[in-house]
Amino acid sequence: MMKKLTTSLVCCLLSGSLFAQQAPTDSTIIKQFFDMSLDKGQSYQWLRELTKNVGGRLAGSANAAKAVQWGKALLEQQGADKVFLQDVMVPHWERGAKEQAYILNGKQKIVVPLLALGGSIATPKKGIQAEVIEVKNFQELRALGKEKCEGKIIFFNRPMDATKINTFEAYGGAGDQRRSGANEASKLGAIGCIIRSLSSTLNDYPHTGSMVYATGVPLIPAGAISTNAAELLSKTLKENPKTQFFFKQNCQTFDDAPSHNVVAELKGSEKPEEIIVVGGHLDSWDVAEGAHDDGTGIVQSIEVLRLFKTLGIKPKRTIRVVLFMNEENGNRGGIKYAELAKQNGEKHVFALESDNGGFTPRGFGLQGASAETLAKVQGFKPLLSPYGLHEIEKGGGGVDIGPLAPQGTVLVGFKPDSQRYFEYHHAANDVFENVNQRELEMGAASMASLIYLLDKYL
Amino acid sequence: MMKKLTTSLVCCLLSGSLFAQQAPTDSTIIKQFFDMSLDKGQSYQWLRELTKNVGGRLAGSANAAKAVQWGKALLEQQGADKVFLQDVMVPHWERGAKEQAYILNGKQKIVVPLLALGGSIATPKKGIQAEVIEVKNFQELRALGKEKCEGKIIFFNRPMDATKINTFEAYGGAGDQRRSGANEASKLGAIGCIIRSLSSTLNDYPHTGSMVYATGVPLIPAGAISTNAAELLSKTLKENPKTQFFFKQNCQTFDDAPSHNVVAELKGSEKPEEIIVVGGHLDSWDVAEGAHDDGTGIVQSIEVLRLFKTLGIKPKRTIRVVLFMNEENGNRGGIKYAELAKQNGEKHVFALESDNGGFTPRGFGLQGASAETLAKVQGFKPLLSPYGLHEIEKGGGGVDIGPLAPQGTVLVGFKPDSQRYFEYHHAANDVFENVNQRELEMGAASMASLIYLLDKYL
Repeated sequence: MMKKLTTSLVCCLLSGSLFAQQAPTDSTIIKQFFDMSLDKGQSYQWLRELTKNVGGRLAGSANAAKAVQWGKALLEQQGADKVFLQDVMVPHWERGAKEQAYILNGKQKIVVPLLALGGSIATPKKGIQAEVIEVKNFQELRALGKEKCEGKIIFFNRPMDATKINTFEAYGGAGDQRRSGANEASKLGAIGCIIRSLSSTLNDYPHTGSMVYATGVPLIPAGAISTNAAELLSKTLKENPKTQFFFKQNCQTFDDAPSHNVVAELKGSEKPEEIIVVGGHLDSWDVAEGAHDDGTGIVQSIEVLRLFKTLGIKPKRTIRVVLFMNEENGNRGGIKYAELAKQNGEKHVFALESDNGGFTPRGFGLQGASAETLAKVQGFKPLLSPYGLHEIEKGGGGVDIGPLAPQGTVLVGFKPDSQRYFEYHHAANDVFENVNQRELEMGAASMASLIYLLDKYL
Repeated sequence: MMKKLTTSLVCCLLSGSLFAQQAPTDSTIIKQFFDMSLDKGQSYQWLRELTKNVGGRLAGSANAAKAVQWGKALLEQQGADKVFLQDVMVPHWERGAKEQAYILNGKQKIVVPLLALGGSIATPKKGIQAEVIEVKNFQELRALGKEKCEGKIIFFNRPMDATKINTFEAYGGAGDQRRSGANEASKLGAIGCIIRSLSSTLNDYPHTGSMVYATGVPLIPAGAISTNAAELLSKTLKENPKTQFFFKQNCQTFDDAPSHNVVAELKGSEKPEEIIVVGGHLDSWDVAEGAHDDGTGIVQSIEVLRLFKTLGIKPKRTIRVVLFMNEENGNRGGIKYAELAKQNGEKHVFALESDNGGFTPRGFGLQGASAETLAKVQGFKPLLSPYGLHEIEKGGGGVDIGPLAPQGTVLVGFKPDSQRYFEYHHAANDVFENVNQRELEMGAASMASLIYLLDKYL
């Protein structure tokens, strides 16, 4: 470093233009991001802190409040120009005591793992027991009609489509069962709803996630069973259509609770009024440590700030690291952030979110970019492809940054490899140990590189 | 399927040229490979069989013989036109009883995990205990000279370079310590050699791997300690340069043993005399199940055959699935295969090897291809990039197929993402559970797709 400084100084004395030639090239700076992230990165150790010392942190919980304090202190340590909290009221739902569930095939009772869906009501204290109607989709359910569904538990068992290369597409294609299955079942008089976990693999982990009750429909409890349990229940129903299912959930919704987004700023040197956001969401489901969802996005975003600071790179625009609150069951943090941005007349030019897991980087997806902007960003490919960032495509973004779209902000989603994400998503195995250090660090460097280029050239 | 057949039949009756237009396009066929591999793939269940029912299978062992029988039977079940074994004599080295090792810092004794390197001699029965000289490379070692090394244990502690994006480069850059460290240490009178495991991560798994004794140098025992143990030993030596190390290895080299390559053929319809090889190596180290190294390459290669057969795709050229024996410590199978190919006047046009782990596919590397051939293969990118196969580059191949190079064969290495490979490579955690089903299956489909295109267009 010392040698470099000396050379630069000499050049500067000799000639302004010569000095410009000696300034580090973009590819040098990008290499520095990757070198520093991979060799002296902090993101992995921060993720260990967040997952092990804080743990699961559903919005409204004591752990979520702890995460806010952790994030604020950490951002302050990184030497941000300003760190502040944004107040936001969030939903407050609690799972309560561990769920119970079993399949009843005649006299045979087979215990299966089940998680209440986030937002669901509890079952009655004694649980629910009823015959089971298995369907693959709403159409099939409606075709059955009230007569067949009344008093039953509806079992939605449509797997994620394994042939989708991007597993988020497969998740999207199966998500209606979780979000609205209970409503559709209730309309036909069902008393409970269970779904096959939205997972890309066969195993024993149930995957939770949010559901939302429709207005004007009786509320029935909804839970998810593991994919292995779904296979077993389906097989059992084929053998014995009179098979019953029992489940007991103890969850409860409380009054909205106060919480916070955490925001840190690196002030822009030339256009400080133009803001580039980089962030993820600080909340997670309660059943695990929220490692890939979205601890990785949080620590990568903070690492972006650290990389800029450590390498002494001064952005033209203001870079804001935002740790959003409540992505999982309300997106109140994202909505509040956009609201305040509008209120304060801020100009958000780009917002980059990492909320697809801490896997090996593949590229970025852009939403709301003009054809010209998209072409410019795709023009960065020669700089990014040596790091495996080949996919710079239309379509992307993130839940938290979504509410900025109407303000003309270009939304960018960081795109890591998607093959493993839905093994862990919203399940008890979303833990630190299932995050690979190098993959995580490469993601942080990828994000820093894109922000550097966006700030410099757009 | 039935509908498609009927359509084709009608078209065929109407017009030959119309029929040609109705034949499935390349992109349809590639999609079929992926759909079938991801939705009804067999590779994962085969990998379970190989890793759990056979297990570790070092060349010359009873398990290696079992693996040969397993592979032969499985290939026969897939309906290959011909399945046969090639006799090959392989080295026969056995680890013997579990190694023992500890650091002695004054009166403090810290047990550390150690694995003998493959090919190493045993220590004397009572083990070796001596002071430790830590070096980073051979240059540093030689600068110390005989005086400082005589009677000592030399500890090679140069980590894999974390800043290399392709971890195989980092592995290559650190490999001399394992391969030749004992020889270099012995030349200076050392009595033992231990190396920092060639691993990309800090953990407690020692990683074995082959070493080869140079002629004319006294043989000294060589082992690998885990990266965590290497860090600890290094730290301890800084505190107390008189720190001693103890290790005991019980390995032994026996006479060469008979073994086999397993070969299966799908006869070409137009140019049966031209051969395309697809394969991996059937042997593995003894300390784990040989899942990523190279169970995944084996089952992916067999899945290529199954995909061609199941989809009714008849290659112009003969496709040979080869399960090579003894890649890990001798490459006798690869050498024998090339020898026989030459002897029999066979023409091998391409050979594709999968031996970089069963991770998410990234592309292929070509060796020995003319500029024209390389350009043609790179021309496949629009067909392959929807599956994440962006990297089609010069440089690649594989140890087993290497000996075919002098025959003018174009060597192709399947290139999965490399970030996680050296966490598992040659260590006890290279087990089935650390292979992701989708990643494995996408690799098999990637390989089938490339072979289909190579056969059709080159």
